[in-house]
Amino acid sequence: MSEKQYVTYGQSCGCGGTDEAKKITGCRFSLSVMSDRYADIILGALAKVDTGKVWKMTDKLSTVYRGRQLHVEDAVMACFVHAFRPDVHMTLEATFSKGCPGDVDADRFMAEDDVPLNAAGMADIHFPVACKIALYPMGVPDYMRHIAAVVNHAIDLGLYERSSHYCTILSGDIHALFGYFHYVNTYCGENLSHYVFEVTLSVNSPTV
Amino acid sequence: MSEKQYVTYGQSCGCGGTDEAKKITGCRFSLSVMSDRYADIILGALAKVDTGKVWKMTDKLSTVYRGRQLHVEDAVMACFVHAFRPDVHMTLEATFSKGCPGDVDADRFMAEDDVPLNAAGMADIHFPVACKIALYPMGVPDYMRHIAAVVNHAIDLGLYERSSHYCTILSGDIHALFGYFHYVNTYCGENLSHYVFEVTLSVNSPTV
Repeated sequence: MSEKQYVTYGQSCGCGGTDEAKKITGCRFSLSVMSDRYADIILGALAKVDTGKVWKMTDKLSTVYRGRQLHVEDAVMACFVHAFRPDVHMTLEATFSKGCPGDVDADRFMAEDDVPLNAAGMADIHFPVACKIALYPMGVPDYMRHIAAVVNHAIDLGLYERSSHYCTILSGDIHALFGYFHYVNTYCGENLSHYVFEVTLSVNSPTV
Repeated sequence: MSEKQYVTYGQSCGCGGTDEAKKITGCRFSLSVMSDRYADIILGALAKVDTGKVWKMTDKLSTVYRGRQLHVEDAVMACFVHAFRPDVHMTLEATFSKGCPGDVDADRFMAEDDVPLNAAGMADIHFPVACKIALYPMGVPDYMRHIAAVVNHAIDLGLYERSSHYCTILSGDIHALFGYFHYVNTYCGENLSHYVFEVTLSVNSPTV
């Protein structure tokens, strides 16, 4: 009789992952292209992204980049920008995260410098984006205070549209939104030991 | 000079929403249909769902159902099942949640009975689904223990494929997966004051 292999999260020391693992920023994301040409558009975009400074993996459900925060953000933005078509409805679901106690110091590029590989190629590409965000600060009782801090920064930046059930609605230019995501990931890296930041981007939706 | 209207989460009593608000299960979800016919497929599916026992709202980014747990689950599953086409790649991103301290006792149907409106019409429809899940128990230090509990139940049910970065990968028939989601929502409702349960479903992906 074979024995089931159960997971054991939460049964170890409770001190979380290693110090090195806690420095890894990751993003698991999926592009959804509402077109018969979705495969060509996604593969074409991925081919244009320079992923030289992030560890990457693609499975049936999504792609994961892991490494230093700025390079992960740079590569995810590049995927979306290069998949953008003025006439095609497309969404991006992205989960940024750092500090999971179950994480391991593997599957990451951490020794890279501070020069983003994709920023120059995107600098002149602008388009408006509808966005929703949800932040989950893990393991702390005062998590609502941190959520309020990042939402209020979106208000300061003029990106905030409204609060809605289970998320906050934003809108703005693609560069302004990714600039804000950089702020959120930085804030969370400095103030939380483990967080999950969910982002949805949508372009060219026919829904008014 | 106009004053900015900031949000104030986390600054009140800290006791969370009202008792009534804490009973509301909600799901915010988006269907992504990778086809030129996406609008027709989604609108056709929505027209087949009986939403008589859930409060509903659709905006540019997603649809929200709120009410009693079983009716919310029943209606979300019906959307996906009725949008399914054997030859079309489609995904569903769904956020189930209950107990947010910022929630209010509004926008919900709670006085309904225990009879699901859509189950009979879906009973004979079966298809295999690739799935990823992520559970976020909020405000508690031992959250990894709860995550392990629900992942291990997926192992018991034979739905577990593997753990991956930032999620757990499952696969199974659509009914088995929604049966499992019902277990997770019930477990969380009984063991946590606030949780967020993220689910992604994918059918007919060309990626092996």
